[in-house]
Amino acid sequence: MSFRLIPSDLLAMATIALCWMPASGGPGGAIAFPHDYRGWTHVKSALVGSESSLFATEGGIHHIYANSAAMEGCRTGKFPDGAMIVYDLLETVETRGLTVEGTRRRVDVMVKDSHRFSESGGWGFRRFLGYYEAAPISSPASAPQVCFGCHQSQSAHDFVFSTFRK
Amino acid sequence: MSFRLIPSDLLAMATIALCWMPASGGPGGAIAFPHDYRGWTHVKSALVGSESSLFATEGGIHHIYANSAAMEGCRTGKFPDGAMIVYDLLETVETRGLTVEGTRRRVDVMVKDSHRFSESGGWGFRRFLGYYEAAPISSPASAPQVCFGCHQSQSAHDFVFSTFRK
Repeated sequence: MSFRLIPSDLLAMATIALCWMPASGGPGGAIAFPHDYRGWTHVKSALVGSESSLFATEGGIHHIYANSAAMEGCRTGKFPDGAMIVYDLLETVETRGLTVEGTRRRVDVMVKDSHRFSESGGWGFRRFLGYYEAAPISSPASAPQVCFGCHQSQSAHDFVFSTFRK
Repeated sequence: MSFRLIPSDLLAMATIALCWMPASGGPGGAIAFPHDYRGWTHVKSALVGSESSLFATEGGIHHIYANSAAMEGCRTGKFPDGAMIVYDLLETVETRGLTVEGTRRRVDVMVKDSHRFSESGGWGFRRFLGYYEAAPISSPASAPQVCFGCHQSQSAHDFVFSTFRK
């Protein structure tokens, strides 16, 4: 077991890669909740603890899931239309050194549609708070470019932060 | 974000549910490494930290994966022949409160074959150390029932500890 220190929070930025855009998600209506995402491929996971500056919003364990089209993108670096990626954030419960998954905090979704979301690299984004059974919370309409503002740094990887952990 | 204490290590026992049997895995030869398991369904995850009594052997983050037959078992409580479950244990790297996945420590596999493994609830077990590219390490032949000795407590769930985290 090794715990190595690395010099920056870049990894944090890479793993909490999804944020939000307006509930409309762009022309054509809102991005729907992907009810089947727990059957998608598990890309990678990370844990944000109380010592992290990101704890308030990202604290807990998060998993990245990709549908089959997004997995093609993970392999080739180019994500086809229809690619969907989920950032699944759960609370954690710790007992004597064992940390297990608790209540879901949030599900963030990014969807590739090069025509519908042409102004943000072909990606649309939407955030759902808590369990998916609950009504999704619309994101502030005043911040339509927040997600892409961060994701556009990853233009060399088609605006996706996560890479598949083999 | 909540951190609630629970009274026992039962959850630890439930999440580190897989152990080992002889390399032969029973009649018919060894259980082969399931090279496609990273495409299986992600069942759940947990983290074993340095404060845990299980740290020496189980320290790190582990993910449970189930193939489609095992997912049928997760839904019905009865696992058909062909069901396979993987316990995927990775080291972790922590930086200022962010814990990400590191080197793979181990892959434990359980396979349902009611005829081949009739003496252990229909399940065979095998352990692979490190990355699957490396040669699998044969488990001590002197401990053929260690896995099932623990798993048989879960007879009401067909000897499987993990339940699907939705």
